[in-house]
Amino acid sequence: MNEIKIFSPATVANVACGFDVLGFCLDSVGDEMVVRKTNKKGIHITKIEGFNLPYETELNVAGVSALAMYKTLDVDFGFEIEIYKNIKPGSGIGSSAASAVGSVYGMNELLGKPFNKTQLTEFAIKGEALASKCEHADNLAPALFGGFTLVKSVSPLQILEIPSPDDLYATIIHPQIEIKTSESRAVLPKEVALSDAIEQWANLGSLVHALHTSDYNLISNSLKDVIVEPHRSQLIPQFNEVKKAVIEAGALGAGISGSGPSIFSLSKGLETAKKVKDAMQSVYLKTVIEFDIHVSKINIDGVKII
Amino acid sequence: MNEIKIFSPATVANVACGFDVLGFCLDSVGDEMVVRKTNKKGIHITKIEGFNLPYETELNVAGVSALAMYKTLDVDFGFEIEIYKNIKPGSGIGSSAASAVGSVYGMNELLGKPFNKTQLTEFAIKGEALASKCEHADNLAPALFGGFTLVKSVSPLQILEIPSPDDLYATIIHPQIEIKTSESRAVLPKEVALSDAIEQWANLGSLVHALHTSDYNLISNSLKDVIVEPHRSQLIPQFNEVKKAVIEAGALGAGISGSGPSIFSLSKGLETAKKVKDAMQSVYLKTVIEFDIHVSKINIDGVKII
Repeated sequence: MNEIKIFSPATVANVACGFDVLGFCLDSVGDEMVVRKTNKKGIHITKIEGFNLPYETELNVAGVSALAMYKTLDVDFGFEIEIYKNIKPGSGIGSSAASAVGSVYGMNELLGKPFNKTQLTEFAIKGEALASKCEHADNLAPALFGGFTLVKSVSPLQILEIPSPDDLYATIIHPQIEIKTSESRAVLPKEVALSDAIEQWANLGSLVHALHTSDYNLISNSLKDVIVEPHRSQLIPQFNEVKKAVIEAGALGAGISGSGPSIFSLSKGLETAKKVKDAMQSVYLKTVIEFDIHVSKINIDGVKII
Repeated sequence: MNEIKIFSPATVANVACGFDVLGFCLDSVGDEMVVRKTNKKGIHITKIEGFNLPYETELNVAGVSALAMYKTLDVDFGFEIEIYKNIKPGSGIGSSAASAVGSVYGMNELLGKPFNKTQLTEFAIKGEALASKCEHADNLAPALFGGFTLVKSVSPLQILEIPSPDDLYATIIHPQIEIKTSESRAVLPKEVALSDAIEQWANLGSLVHALHTSDYNLISNSLKDVIVEPHRSQLIPQFNEVKKAVIEAGALGAGISGSGPSIFSLSKGLETAKKVKDAMQSVYLKTVIEFDIHVSKINIDGVKII
């Protein structure tokens, strides 16, 4: 096998109470990539469609993660990467993570799987760091492992796969506004009240338990973020209206996807997730803000060959 | 049935990363209580052995929780309570919780179980509040439900029962020093670094996952407290030496039990838990501090009739 086509999924990080540690994987939106073994040594990006991204390997997220793996290999061939980008950069659903994951996953398959998924995450972190200026894995882990993941620590890298109930669906709206990374970082508090931190970890502990026990009521009850959302939601127009509308439409809960501006919601069942879509749309249709919207089952496989 | 004898167990609250929310139940140490229906209305404490505690119902933890339940009843009889106290007050292994739980559990049995365990916890909270000056359930919940419990919230009261592996044992040492509640509260930070809070909730989420999956390595890896232990451990002489010694003896981890001074440790298997006991003892035998020490399987039943 010398060539492989990959679906690299979008992901939702943070998931309300799981700031910086929790994430889950989507299946209805993601990038496609072709990875090809070539006689020419090195990593070469030969095609990019969808968005305007750099072709220089060292400046491209997929290129940097590919290089991180390539440097550990002792081979007399190279790889070409074609990127068909569907996930808008800066949308808050793991666009850079999908790029970083796709190249290393594809290379690993072509090499006969010498690396496990945690090792692939280590390489992908280098690509993610190019985009987000810090090494984190909360989008990479669900993109690679699928389902819900908890990044227990980055150094050493420890990723836990949390089971989730079969009938869990996500609805995600991406209001097309730009939030600068610097801005979404600047609003984060450096210190938090101990009482708020306790509430947050009670909710995260509960959410992990609820996912293990397929307890939808408890999932709903645990999807609260008292630490970050009060600050970052102010950067997202209509955030509170969307949250109110999706709960009225039957969603289990909602929150900011990653650092925004996308808003995610979780629902029991596809029908409810579609109603939630209508509810989200109706809020933004009253504004001049354009948006994308996705309904997706939780993708338990993660990145895959297509 | 007009009379019942109860074993009301000691408990470990906080459990390193689970400050204010997590707890587990012991089976080798606990109070015994007799609860008796009487023609005389009201709640009367008729016997106290073991420690010097007040007989006045309104000043006794077991009496106050009993009264909280009794006030909701419309009955023409009353209850007598005898308390055989084995858990030293102020030891940090849920002495007041055992008292608060025993009376209401016993009354509920004699009444034909009109109340569920969450309702019993609500009554017991009133007794606990007499002792600790605040309403909390992190010792009450494991004493009533058994096993590991996560108190998701106190108002409304939400208690989650977290499964735990069969071969998990606790070793607890109680160095007989007095730490004033006011002192152990005063050292708590009001604000904590966001980065520390994230580490703490990553560990708590991991511990809940590890308990669900019987992953002893991950239990070990998650038993860390970066928020409270650095402050409160300074009030406990030899804390760091004990922690080092139990890890060398093969324990999964250790931490402060409740607000101290007791130190708990968890181990896989009884043999290791006994080695941990020796290791703990050896540290305090070099000092003038007297101590009690207990080895206990995790008690998955909680309070019970004997």
